[in-house]
Amino acid sequence: MGTRTGLSTALLTDHYELTMLQATLCDGTAQRRSVFELFARRLSGGRRYGVVAGTGRFLDALENFRFGDDELRFLRDAAVVDDATLDWLADFRFTGDVWGYPEGELYFPGSPVLVVEGTFAECVVLETVALSVLNHDSAIATAAARMTAAAGDRPCIEMGSRRTQEWSAVAAARAAYVAGFAATSNLEAGRTYGIPTTGTAAHSFTLVHDSEKEAFEAQVAALGSGTTLLVDTYDIAEGVRNAIAAGGLDLGAVRLDSGDLAQVAASVRAQLDSLGATTTRITVTSDLDEYAIAALAVAPVDGYGVGTSLVTGSGVPTSGFVYKLVAREGADGSLVSVAKKSKDKISVGGRKFAVRRRDERGIATAEVIGVGEQPDSDHDDRTLLVPLVTKGERVDRASLEDARRHFRSAIGELPAGALRLSKGDPALPTVYEEH
Amino acid sequence: MGTRTGLSTALLTDHYELTMLQATLCDGTAQRRSVFELFARRLSGGRRYGVVAGTGRFLDALENFRFGDDELRFLRDAAVVDDATLDWLADFRFTGDVWGYPEGELYFPGSPVLVVEGTFAECVVLETVALSVLNHDSAIATAAARMTAAAGDRPCIEMGSRRTQEWSAVAAARAAYVAGFAATSNLEAGRTYGIPTTGTAAHSFTLVHDSEKEAFEAQVAALGSGTTLLVDTYDIAEGVRNAIAAGGLDLGAVRLDSGDLAQVAASVRAQLDSLGATTTRITVTSDLDEYAIAALAVAPVDGYGVGTSLVTGSGVPTSGFVYKLVAREGADGSLVSVAKKSKDKISVGGRKFAVRRRDERGIATAEVIGVGEQPDSDHDDRTLLVPLVTKGERVDRASLEDARRHFRSAIGELPAGALRLSKGDPALPTVYEEH
Repeated sequence: MGTRTGLSTALLTDHYELTMLQATLCDGTAQRRSVFELFARRLSGGRRYGVVAGTGRFLDALENFRFGDDELRFLRDAAVVDDATLDWLADFRFTGDVWGYPEGELYFPGSPVLVVEGTFAECVVLETVALSVLNHDSAIATAAARMTAAAGDRPCIEMGSRRTQEWSAVAAARAAYVAGFAATSNLEAGRTYGIPTTGTAAHSFTLVHDSEKEAFEAQVAALGSGTTLLVDTYDIAEGVRNAIAAGGLDLGAVRLDSGDLAQVAASVRAQLDSLGATTTRITVTSDLDEYAIAALAVAPVDGYGVGTSLVTGSGVPTSGFVYKLVAREGADGSLVSVAKKSKDKISVGGRKFAVRRRDERGIATAEVIGVGEQPDSDHDDRTLLVPLVTKGERVDRASLEDARRHFRSAIGELPAGALRLSKGDPALPTVYEEH
Repeated sequence: MGTRTGLSTALLTDHYELTMLQATLCDGTAQRRSVFELFARRLSGGRRYGVVAGTGRFLDALENFRFGDDELRFLRDAAVVDDATLDWLADFRFTGDVWGYPEGELYFPGSPVLVVEGTFAECVVLETVALSVLNHDSAIATAAARMTAAAGDRPCIEMGSRRTQEWSAVAAARAAYVAGFAATSNLEAGRTYGIPTTGTAAHSFTLVHDSEKEAFEAQVAALGSGTTLLVDTYDIAEGVRNAIAAGGLDLGAVRLDSGDLAQVAASVRAQLDSLGATTTRITVTSDLDEYAIAALAVAPVDGYGVGTSLVTGSGVPTSGFVYKLVAREGADGSLVSVAKKSKDKISVGGRKFAVRRRDERGIATAEVIGVGEQPDSDHDDRTLLVPLVTKGERVDRASLEDARRHFRSAIGELPAGALRLSKGDPALPTVYEEH
């Protein structure tokens, strides 16, 4: 998993998790068996569905959630917790169980995307790192899914690294890939996750040369005629002529990064065809989002490069997942459902189970959540929770390609209309079955 | 600078930077002396000003921008570039100069926030990492500045880690601190940057106990009566009674995380006072943004905990900075101004210099940008660009506390009305002086 393996994730944690740990170690409640769930109360931004992403990254982070000397020294020097708590942290190793929706699965309001069971102490310290990973990655994957749906068969390329924090960029490339993007510009994502990377040249490349013609010739000489030439630094029509002059009729593609893309793409297509470059593709990249992509459906465009909008979640930069205690051991040793009563933030207590209900044609009809036990099942239900960690050992080894496949399959089950880009209700109702 | 020192940042780079490198190494333009500038064409979201943050992090990233064996192996295996380019990268060390606005400074459309000068090759490869850091951190700092302005003398605490990518969270805590936040919940930010961390308990802490009373007693026993008790898990009035029963009249604070905060804070204040707990503070934390903070100005609230809205830039999650070649050596060795002509994305060519013009009372009146040379200066101008890296050596050693001070001073110079939260024009006009 690349260079960041081994980097401790233990301090990617809110201070209050460790003070809660200290207080519960004092009175013994730290040892109470507990169930925490990660779920969203609603789909922000009127989304029709959410896409689960980050599960694999969370499991990586969990493996590196260790308090070494450096972490303990900081906690001691900053007086975050007392010595007894530091001793407990020094030995920390998650020994509980985690179930979750497979990466690439869809989620709806109330879906128990992650279920973490163990002692209160070992579960409560994972709150922030679990939420950070899933909230970010799922927001990006959900935006990406809208874009790949709008793009249809045309490939989408992730190129938003520059518009988000440098390590978020790597996670964003990964999340976009889960939701159907074909490639990324981010080299670290290529190294860490094996995602195909792509890219050719920016305007600065043309500008550092004395003429566009010399720039294009240099690029074709270095990268071959299959390369993509950026033709809008000066005049586009002249840029296209220069491009074909440099790359010949085998030129791979031209890229357009400004102007009214539908109109420009049409005239560039006509020009390319008239020059005989009928196989030279057109890639567009200027401030695209899912709406712009949809609007270009009838334009002669062969691929989309998407940046800012993707990495910022296209208006919904975080998924709104929360991580809540839903059940814990009582004084008598039995598991008790719990939920806060806070106004406007009510949760459903109790351990959840979930299935995707489907009709006889395999079309999803509901997100069915069993409280306390599995929903009454018929043969078309699809079980959503899979074991990820068992007694502290990671048992899930789904690859990123598995996640891509899972995504394609899950989104293929949605009913007609679910892929609409307009704001609205979730594509499936969430149905609770309480026993 | 914490555990991540030494981690290579070299692949936090878009693929096309290395293909441009290869092509310019082939034809010799790689060696052309070049000036790149990082600037924003506009202030997104109708912001009145932007806050520069991330400068220190960018300089850290630059020190770690080295292609080691792992990085080179990936580039070779994935066939990103040819062997000659790999050889060049293996020896890479930035040997040029960087000037920038000091961290904490304000910026306006066109402000040359970062100026990077060196060979084309060594400048072009820094594009993505520079933009990623500055675009993220400045967006967060700009949102934070609006919040601290709205909060006045009341402290703001950053607690948004869970709603953004796990390493973005650390950077966000740092950026918020630059713009006046008092503390963060993020422990890694405490370790890496020395930012004060804070936190006490979540609802899960109350719920794992058999009663709220037992939870509060356990917390006070572990953390002392100066702690903050979260009183809205069940009934707030009873929570406040339980809190004072457990913590006594010395109880540090109560926290409210739900409901109509203005109304609830007023009734909790009255209740606390009637119980004699007149020094017990009230902290509020439920989905706050700068508008909610402003609306609570007359409520009896002593501090604000801000999460989601802060770490997502309060509607503007990225700053819109671009990194453009503005001048480069021509065939005759002299420096030539360059700029692309693309429709809707026109840039001003030429190396920029910048001053903040101020009137006789020290109030800022304009952002004056000299193209090609320093603006004609009068004695109230403040020079904005400072040397950060000279001949490859980092010369800037501004601390985070320096950045906080710089921010307070810079924002104190703005004219009346500049701190309005409503959307509008930049607080200062940008004036170009061309010679």
